[in-house]
Amino acid sequence: MPEVWFEDFTVGREFRTPAVTVTDADILEFARRFDPQPFHVDALAAAQSPYRGLIASGLHTIALTFRLFLDSGALAVASLGSFGLDEIRWREPVRPGDTLSVVVEVVAARPSASKPDRGIASLRYRTVNQRGETVMTMVGHQFVRRRP
Amino acid sequence: MPEVWFEDFTVGREFRTPAVTVTDADILEFARRFDPQPFHVDALAAAQSPYRGLIASGLHTIALTFRLFLDSGALAVASLGSFGLDEIRWREPVRPGDTLSVVVEVVAARPSASKPDRGIASLRYRTVNQRGETVMTMVGHQFVRRRP
Repeated sequence: MPEVWFEDFTVGREFRTPAVTVTDADILEFARRFDPQPFHVDALAAAQSPYRGLIASGLHTIALTFRLFLDSGALAVASLGSFGLDEIRWREPVRPGDTLSVVVEVVAARPSASKPDRGIASLRYRTVNQRGETVMTMVGHQFVRRRP
Repeated sequence: MPEVWFEDFTVGREFRTPAVTVTDADILEFARRFDPQPFHVDALAAAQSPYRGLIASGLHTIALTFRLFLDSGALAVASLGSFGLDEIRWREPVRPGDTLSVVVEVVAARPSASKPDRGIASLRYRTVNQRGETVMTMVGHQFVRRRP
């Protein structure tokens, strides 16, 4: 991908990420560390839960989504971090063997009021599985350097 | 903690979590996996960044915050998962050696419109460090079983 600076985050532009397949082991490892609820860490309990089987922690889905966006290269040269996320919604379960990729659309872009070297790009993330189902959506706000 | 069911998530109630100290190794391990931006994975690059040193990925802070809440026991018997998070704001950097704990306040509680066995508790998380600084706030929406 050619270098992406603040000026390149034009409203409506879409970025597409690579894909990643989520394994049983990935789900268990993340959840044991950060979200050890029965339906994330115990296949038997998960089978008897309303989710009828093991599902990934939603926090894991957020982390994978952002990693995929980094892997797209869009933040490779100009990212200065982020101040927040909004409207995270988990819409479908992520199960072992699912393959996720992300469509990231620029929904707003404004220069920083206080720092002339940067702007703020607001990005709508839509994470989809191998059946084209949207499993998660969220909006993130990214500090991005202006083109030097 | 005594069992906590939907009826126990009364607006204004506060839960306090245990604390966790975040190490260099924790920060690097999470960030290499999910958020390998220079200021999260490379101490030298981080020192030259606007953050003037290594900081934890904000996604790591979300995950630690939720884990601490689970460790409080408030979701031990009645959690049915979550549909989303809102208004995540990273307010101060989290650095190696910082000790985090969380204050979780019930800001809304309503019965499910479609499922009589549960309600939805909306919770405001405030993650604080060892100096009493608020490093992150967010609102989460939790499905919680009613008392049997």
